[in-house]
Amino acid sequence: MNPNELAVELHKKYQGKITIALRDTDELDRAKLSAYYSPGVGAISKLIAEDHSKLSEYTWTNNLVAVISDGSAVLGLGNLGPEGAMPVMEGKALLFKHLANIDSVPIVLNVHTADEIVATVKAMALSFGAINLEDIAAPICFEVEERLKAELSIPIMHDDQHGTATVTLAGLINACKLTGRKLSECKIAIVGAGAAGVAVAKLLQEYADPQIIAVDSKGIIGHDRTDLNESKQLLLEFTNKDNVSGTLEDAVRDADVFIGVSSAGLLTQDMVRSMAKDPIIFALANPDPEITPEDAKAAGAAVIATGRSDFPNQVNNAIAFPGIFRGALDNKVNQITDKHKIAAAEAIASLVENVTADEIIPSVFNDQLVPTISNVIR
Amino acid sequence: MNPNELAVELHKKYQGKITIALRDTDELDRAKLSAYYSPGVGAISKLIAEDHSKLSEYTWTNNLVAVISDGSAVLGLGNLGPEGAMPVMEGKALLFKHLANIDSVPIVLNVHTADEIVATVKAMALSFGAINLEDIAAPICFEVEERLKAELSIPIMHDDQHGTATVTLAGLINACKLTGRKLSECKIAIVGAGAAGVAVAKLLQEYADPQIIAVDSKGIIGHDRTDLNESKQLLLEFTNKDNVSGTLEDAVRDADVFIGVSSAGLLTQDMVRSMAKDPIIFALANPDPEITPEDAKAAGAAVIATGRSDFPNQVNNAIAFPGIFRGALDNKVNQITDKHKIAAAEAIASLVENVTADEIIPSVFNDQLVPTISNVIR
Repeated sequence: MNPNELAVELHKKYQGKITIALRDTDELDRAKLSAYYSPGVGAISKLIAEDHSKLSEYTWTNNLVAVISDGSAVLGLGNLGPEGAMPVMEGKALLFKHLANIDSVPIVLNVHTADEIVATVKAMALSFGAINLEDIAAPICFEVEERLKAELSIPIMHDDQHGTATVTLAGLINACKLTGRKLSECKIAIVGAGAAGVAVAKLLQEYADPQIIAVDSKGIIGHDRTDLNESKQLLLEFTNKDNVSGTLEDAVRDADVFIGVSSAGLLTQDMVRSMAKDPIIFALANPDPEITPEDAKAAGAAVIATGRSDFPNQVNNAIAFPGIFRGALDNKVNQITDKHKIAAAEAIASLVENVTADEIIPSVFNDQLVPTISNVIR
Repeated sequence: MNPNELAVELHKKYQGKITIALRDTDELDRAKLSAYYSPGVGAISKLIAEDHSKLSEYTWTNNLVAVISDGSAVLGLGNLGPEGAMPVMEGKALLFKHLANIDSVPIVLNVHTADEIVATVKAMALSFGAINLEDIAAPICFEVEERLKAELSIPIMHDDQHGTATVTLAGLINACKLTGRKLSECKIAIVGAGAAGVAVAKLLQEYADPQIIAVDSKGIIGHDRTDLNESKQLLLEFTNKDNVSGTLEDAVRDADVFIGVSSAGLLTQDMVRSMAKDPIIFALANPDPEITPEDAKAAGAAVIATGRSDFPNQVNNAIAFPGIFRGALDNKVNQITDKHKIAAAEAIASLVENVTADEIIPSVFNDQLVPTISNVIR
């Protein structure tokens, strides 16, 4: 049975993926109900009203993440709207619970401007211990995350950006080790300048300041371009330092690393052959990569990673986000910073004991991921 | 151990009352994860994006209530703010699950104007199957509920208003039966004109159009008053038809029924003695009633109900709201109307087999409540 058929079968059977359960699984007699609800709960309310730090001590917020989307960029499917986004957000809640024992609540928003999304999330943020923004389209996602991080004091992460960036960096650390490169000396072409592409570029720059050229659907992002939105303009502060212009082909020529977060089939075998010796290919477009692992290898790729679970080296956000949020909640971290993402990437890379071309990234099922990552989020 | 001490002990032990669990409790292998999340879940997203009616079929929203408060009127404790409200809302979620197997999520809002509350709730409403507004102060609660009901197509109920009104009506139906009265012929003094008082007055009027006099802290609500907010002015459309003015004493004199949703100790024995023969007293102030059952009986009350679980005849919202929301979700009701509340009140009243002065209202533990009420919410 293919994943789509199984998805329909399971969603029909269970009519949803998560449910509420009670922490106290013993019998609830009248005395307990009077303690969990009125009148006893009033004592807890008064304690918290007097000392807000007790909110996380006495309520489920200590282990609670809101998974929030406006449905404007759902998986690789585009703008499906909040209704279409809901099963994905509920799926994320399933992963949070299953992989890191984190409670989470899927919230889909029927508003789509940065102002409205920020106002809505701020209004309800006290209800949660952390916020996972998900599947919000670029460039609005950048402003939303930045403003929420500035205005709220709980951990906030847009996973499409930073989960992808963290796992990509982890994979690159091991791919460089395998091919005898220093990441700081690599020439890297990043193709796709949406949420993931921008975040990957920023994190690589912060980590090793390599030579990066970013490419969007119109070609190389350079100073000659007059059609760049703000987030792409900001990329120019640290990418394309030689200010070249041109096409995807031009960007890829002589590059050590190709990172695609764009569309299926964009990278040809000829382009791979034009890259530096033993090139590293991260073809992360979903559901179909920019080049298949077979074609990439046949054209000389030393390492190929994709977003798919049916090929080796899956760059899967679920490798990073459960441990990052587990650590943020457990260690009472108020902001998830680049330092945390880099520490998480190094922790992930360290979990591959014998790095080979077919194993630069640990499996999402590696049970050391969450404890190892959460331990470095401090 | 008193409820407050037990509350502290239990909240310390469990650090919250609810948690997330997975509907599918079998092992989650790689194939299932690919169906519950990417890539398989994309098929479900596309189905829902094409046909929004499938949202409730394939996601947990079909059994999900948001419990939403801004913390402006928490229990009988007043404006404790959203932080202070959280343990109460989480307690309500515990009751929803325990009493009616309904999933619910406590959401506290850090905004307090009607415009902001309405905007926030509307923005996230698609995430839920129904909305329970809770502990929002009058008069803002009236505008918030009215606007949300007009603008959203899922069931919405402010429980402080309508839960209280429904259970009060149920109790009055049986109290009238016991004392040989027709509710339509009763003179009723309602003391307290906040959320609960206004809703009780409206529902009694809708059900039987009795003679109602409403009283607030300044005295009888009449046309001579120049200090009335909009909701109190609206009460004058059907209460105090003889346009009397005066004090609480004046309102209570010769009344058949006293309904207090005000403050402890407000009703004296002399006032009870001034009422009609065999008076009915609903002294619902929390945590301490307007008069104790002992004092009321000694002064001649035929029936006394309070809000407390340690006296007979507890008017407890938890008698009504689980069944009302269970029915609304199961029977795909889009609006909870007066007709539903009246049907629920009659269903509740019918569950007391032998009506006596000490049993006009069924226990919250009566396991027929939820099935009987939910069956009439259609």
